[in-house]
Amino acid sequence: MAGSMLGEVFRISTWGESHGKGLGVVVDGCPAGVPLSEEDIQKYLNKRKPGETRYATPRKEDDRVSIWSGVFEGKTTGTPIAMTVENKSHKSADYSEIASYYRPGHADYTFDAKYGFRDYRGGGRSSGRETIGRVAAGAVAARILSEMGIRITAYVREIGPYCCREEHVSFENIEKSPLRMPDLQMSEQAEEYLASKMREMDSCGGVIECVISGVPAGIGEPVFGKLDALLAGAVMSVGAVKGVEIGAGFAAAGMSGSENNDEFYVDADGGIKKKTNFAGGVLGGISDGDDIIIRAAFKPTPSVFRPQHTVNKDGENIEVQIKGRHDPIIVPRAVVVVESMAAITLVDRMFVAMTSQMDRIRDFYTNTN
Amino acid sequence: MAGSMLGEVFRISTWGESHGKGLGVVVDGCPAGVPLSEEDIQKYLNKRKPGETRYATPRKEDDRVSIWSGVFEGKTTGTPIAMTVENKSHKSADYSEIASYYRPGHADYTFDAKYGFRDYRGGGRSSGRETIGRVAAGAVAARILSEMGIRITAYVREIGPYCCREEHVSFENIEKSPLRMPDLQMSEQAEEYLASKMREMDSCGGVIECVISGVPAGIGEPVFGKLDALLAGAVMSVGAVKGVEIGAGFAAAGMSGSENNDEFYVDADGGIKKKTNFAGGVLGGISDGDDIIIRAAFKPTPSVFRPQHTVNKDGENIEVQIKGRHDPIIVPRAVVVVESMAAITLVDRMFVAMTSQMDRIRDFYTNTN
Amino acid sequence: MAGSMLGEVFRISTWGESHGKGLGVVVDGCPAGVPLSEEDIQKYLNKRKPGETRYATPRKEDDRVSIWSGVFEGKTTGTPIAMTVENKSHKSADYSEIASYYRPGHADYTFDAKYGFRDYRGGGRSSGRETIGRVAAGAVAARILSEMGIRITAYVREIGPYCCREEHVSFENIEKSPLRMPDLQMSEQAEEYLASKMREMDSCGGVIECVISGVPAGIGEPVFGKLDALLAGAVMSVGAVKGVEIGAGFAAAGMSGSENNDEFYVDADGGIKKKTNFAGGVLGGISDGDDIIIRAAFKPTPSVFRPQHTVNKDGENIEVQIKGRHDPIIVPRAVVVVESMAAITLVDRMFVAMTSQMDRIRDFYTNTN
Amino acid sequence: MAGSMLGEVFRISTWGESHGKGLGVVVDGCPAGVPLSEEDIQKYLNKRKPGETRYATPRKEDDRVSIWSGVFEGKTTGTPIAMTVENKSHKSADYSEIASYYRPGHADYTFDAKYGFRDYRGGGRSSGRETIGRVAAGAVAARILSEMGIRITAYVREIGPYCCREEHVSFENIEKSPLRMPDLQMSEQAEEYLASKMREMDSCGGVIECVISGVPAGIGEPVFGKLDALLAGAVMSVGAVKGVEIGAGFAAAGMSGSENNDEFYVDADGGIKKKTNFAGGVLGGISDGDDIIIRAAFKPTPSVFRPQHTVNKDGENIEVQIKGRHDPIIVPRAVVVVESMAAITLVDRMFVAMTSQMDRIRDFYTNTN
Repeated sequence: MAGSMLGEVFRISTWGESHGKGLGVVVDGCPAGVPLSEEDIQKYLNKRKPGETRYATPRKEDDRVSIWSGVFEGKTTGTPIAMTVENKSHKSADYSEIASYYRPGHADYTFDAKYGFRDYRGGGRSSGRETIGRVAAGAVAARILSEMGIRITAYVREIGPYCCREEHVSFENIEKSPLRMPDLQMSEQAEEYLASKMREMDSCGGVIECVISGVPAGIGEPVFGKLDALLAGAVMSVGAVKGVEIGAGFAAAGMSGSENNDEFYVDADGGIKKKTNFAGGVLGGISDGDDIIIRAAFKPTPSVFRPQHTVNKDGENIEVQIKGRHDPIIVPRAVVVVESMAAITLVDRMFVAMTSQMDRIRDFYTNTN
Repeated sequence: MAGSMLGEVFRISTWGESHGKGLGVVVDGCPAGVPLSEEDIQKYLNKRKPGETRYATPRKEDDRVSIWSGVFEGKTTGTPIAMTVENKSHKSADYSEIASYYRPGHADYTFDAKYGFRDYRGGGRSSGRETIGRVAAGAVAARILSEMGIRITAYVREIGPYCCREEHVSFENIEKSPLRMPDLQMSEQAEEYLASKMREMDSCGGVIECVISGVPAGIGEPVFGKLDALLAGAVMSVGAVKGVEIGAGFAAAGMSGSENNDEFYVDADGGIKKKTNFAGGVLGGISDGDDIIIRAAFKPTPSVFRPQHTVNKDGENIEVQIKGRHDPIIVPRAVVVVESMAAITLVDRMFVAMTSQMDRIRDFYTNTN
Repeated sequence: MAGSMLGEVFRISTWGESHGKGLGVVVDGCPAGVPLSEEDIQKYLNKRKPGETRYATPRKEDDRVSIWSGVFEGKTTGTPIAMTVENKSHKSADYSEIASYYRPGHADYTFDAKYGFRDYRGGGRSSGRETIGRVAAGAVAARILSEMGIRITAYVREIGPYCCREEHVSFENIEKSPLRMPDLQMSEQAEEYLASKMREMDSCGGVIECVISGVPAGIGEPVFGKLDALLAGAVMSVGAVKGVEIGAGFAAAGMSGSENNDEFYVDADGGIKKKTNFAGGVLGGISDGDDIIIRAAFKPTPSVFRPQHTVNKDGENIEVQIKGRHDPIIVPRAVVVVESMAAITLVDRMFVAMTSQMDRIRDFYTNTN
Repeated sequence: MAGSMLGEVFRISTWGESHGKGLGVVVDGCPAGVPLSEEDIQKYLNKRKPGETRYATPRKEDDRVSIWSGVFEGKTTGTPIAMTVENKSHKSADYSEIASYYRPGHADYTFDAKYGFRDYRGGGRSSGRETIGRVAAGAVAARILSEMGIRITAYVREIGPYCCREEHVSFENIEKSPLRMPDLQMSEQAEEYLASKMREMDSCGGVIECVISGVPAGIGEPVFGKLDALLAGAVMSVGAVKGVEIGAGFAAAGMSGSENNDEFYVDADGGIKKKTNFAGGVLGGISDGDDIIIRAAFKPTPSVFRPQHTVNKDGENIEVQIKGRHDPIIVPRAVVVVESMAAITLVDRMFVAMTSQMDRIRDFYTNTN
């Protein structure tokens, strides 16, 4: 789980800079026989496109995916799936100035410290375009999960002081909101808030909640391979995420044990259920059959148009004013990125979990061979 | 990064149940020539012992570590370091009843769902005693880091409504507080709060903050190998942790970009510094030379002595009352566990980061061979 | 697959030096529900003991295994299995001289070059005793395989100029030969050959063949995860192995395609079989249902009692005469080590192969949850 | 080390089928600052092209590489390097018949057994074209090694009964031979032998030797991470390889210890050298500073034009005659593939080996930060 590769059995390898020839991903370990087309991937990629609203960069990102391998006659073959998206609208001129200084809140300085130099065009590998590889792989993972009846849905829960009220959240409303906030009243207020920030040449962050339904109990390993630990690591790896929580999350720290414990009960069908879900669907790192709930906190876009103090590469204190086209908020576009990271992580764990019990392994091999 | 193994170059493999023969860890990838003794490990293990206060289980956990391999004449040899701690006081009788039902908030149900059965004695592998392996490995990692001038310090920041005030936090006070809360006034109030919870046969959670000082800029990889993502995953893998944040964390989601951006400046020595540290020492997943700040939210101990509703293995709804000796709060004992996870993760990343630049690799091999 | 850890889903972590406190292994990723006792492990370890014959060191290696974790009520629990063997008869005095020079054919020089110093007592980590961890893990893997009807058998095929004739090889004879050569006539001649080498204060190598029966077709991944590639790497990692081949091996290089191709046919039961098995049971890196055949070439024991030229740590050319107790041949004792490496590798691949087809994954999760 | 990914710090991920849109590789973990151009890669790829001789398929494989990412202003940036080669001349019609039956010696049957179906066009992922990704990554690895003064050279040592005589082997002659056999007299005889096999509608295999010069002592880990074990696994993963040996290899099994031990001596410059190199440059899995010698046995091309017996997918015994264009020998074209696997493996180990000694790690971080 280093650099740009992720996973143990379902493995992905992403690559690409914002202003190179393109970006993409290789998915290794996808089983054979999954129906898959470029259109399945494209639907996911479109969800991270800037869209038509004023809350996103007017840059045209008409990202068309191309599948190079691993799919034959409409189905995956079990061999690696390589996908590429070409960079079309890279006007490098926009970015030439930023080569000379370190933008506050960006990775310019740390890339230079690590590598000795950097591809300064549009953030290079630290650009938000890096998520194209994640989302293309996430679309494959989501396709696999849908074959097992598992559904992943994320939405924007908070922007500034505006937070969706749980009773007003309906998943059908997500795409009705330009901010992907399914409490439409809060969405409107958040829009106004965001507009005011834009007038102030400033930017916003927010919180995304992701709900995974249909996961059977028993997925995840104890200790380091805990399902929630791997989900947290995967979601925290998304640029701009500064915090992750599961279930009650930070609120759990303030609760008493008798409040926080989810009591078990047997339902009408004899299934074991929990009366509440403060655990967020994971106990001891292993799924408990309930919805898995993750939340991620995104910091505000660092590219603000106000003048800022910083240093240049000659070691001088300077004042800068960032130009170009930048999202005043990236949170709505990041919804599909969070879904993708959750899907990629979960598929890998579900594959590993197939080896938890000797009886089931024996049955697997006896029934088929 | 699955199951009970962690790391890529500095790798650990932990094992052990609360009521088996013992627990331990193998550390592979420790460089040769690190001064190391059993006493170095023991100091760390002692920090996770229940201690003398009333806020911890009266169980005697006189955990003595034994080093079996990898150390010769007081120094590591570069080969795997195996360490064991024997289980001494396992009165299995205390736990026999819980074999028949699923304790709320515990992993009993999910272990059964995953493995078909479980070692029910004292939680088995999901017991807090599992952290012995983490802490022993963490002691080795911390020893390596100290050779490079890096120091990791964690403390309890919040218990219930009581939160250390930043200006009152002094690291020297940590061990003066029975709760490891270095704002001693808050510590006293938290003690009272905790006592009230104990009278109510209830339990508490809390928040731990961990500060890593002395890390050079340039550690961590972009994308999935981000330093903060790996730290988050590692800390979230500690039992009872439900949330993790870096720097401003969830608060960053509510800030504007102009507030949240840490402006750079050149200090008197020509070093590049940040005026603030909302980033928590990591930009784009790579260390920026500033203190790295992580916080972890721990849920309250699930073993409360109040009656609770749950189900038994026969699928019946029942009421249970947990007996035995249980910590009303585990957060102070978890401080060294968080330090250990941070140390293990950071050492691994510092080793990987040695290969970031061709010039430095060439120098490394030219100078020595 | 670095250092002392191996595997992806079924993972092992070995440790220990010949003259430390002991040696052992942690097995992570073993499924729950495998019947396992210390006796199962001990049987395997006994096969690598020096035994009673004159062809092995008179050192007493009464290696008793102890299982510390991962087994409860006679069955594995799915959590890590830690096993230790204490070092009993380490008369360090025997080895003190060799600290000062580099024995030809041993790893003394390369360990110093790599680590700056070494545990010189009896070879430390490069001792043949290192295989204790491999064999203990191999016993677990073999136990899992036997649950699926898979059997691994290795034997000594060649010693010096004496090679078992295929038509005289019967697996029942393996343990009847003090050299584990199942062609008993060749075994006798090899014994005489070995005796002559011992009189000459010299040593011998040999070739081990390993046969794996009952593996279903379809195990192994294309490209780097080929079953034969992983078997080759695993067997080559055994000390003293200098060559590995699959099926016809090096002889295949001299054959024509029409000779070497194994023609397929349909047998009476409708099964697809091969008329010959030059492939050694693997085509394109994937098992074909036939016996898997691996051979490993072991170099002669480097500890010969004849005077040899070498250098000391002061950089002087010297003549040395190695003392102590050393096997004139280690090949018969290595038979169980080869079996172990094959078992460990195969279990891991069989676990990974469970995720090759979407239909079977869906069935797995649908049938059970 | 599974599927199509390889390596721990220097990691590659290959993909592509013979008749899909293209093939390629992602290299993650390449340090920043390595001079690299498409031409560097192309030179390597050209070495695996069919060439102009009659001993290779007349298929036109005009494989042009394209670098998509990870290189900026002529140097690597430290981020993933994605490379693609488009498939141009895929006349799928040639291969339509083979969809219905299993070719002897090919992976048709095992792919079906594993995945349930296969991309039957030209072997799909099991085609020799799969090596394009290996060679492109190998070119990057070789570029890194050349920065450290390490050179990797492979050549054809044996074809049929013709074996290069050691004293006639001169690396400058390699490219003078259409078979890459640097003993030019043997090369001529092998050409005649090969011509006779072609007349008989048959095919040949052979042995490749690979020599790595300039590797410092101390590279490789004990136990499973042995340099020779990883080289063996990597080379055995090349399609058609059935055996691998290091140094004296299988011949070592027939030698006595006094013959096989390489005696050390101190040379005029005070360096520690070996009088012979039966070890092949590796002792105890760690490089000893001498040339590293690997040999790989390639089976004959399975696509022979003679009639063969086999089975079809309906489970019937049939006779087939393979059509199309196939190499009568692939060994000369595989030379660069073996070099590539050696380079990829060695770079990864050299990166890991930088963390062997605490003193050197401390120096590394102290000198630079």
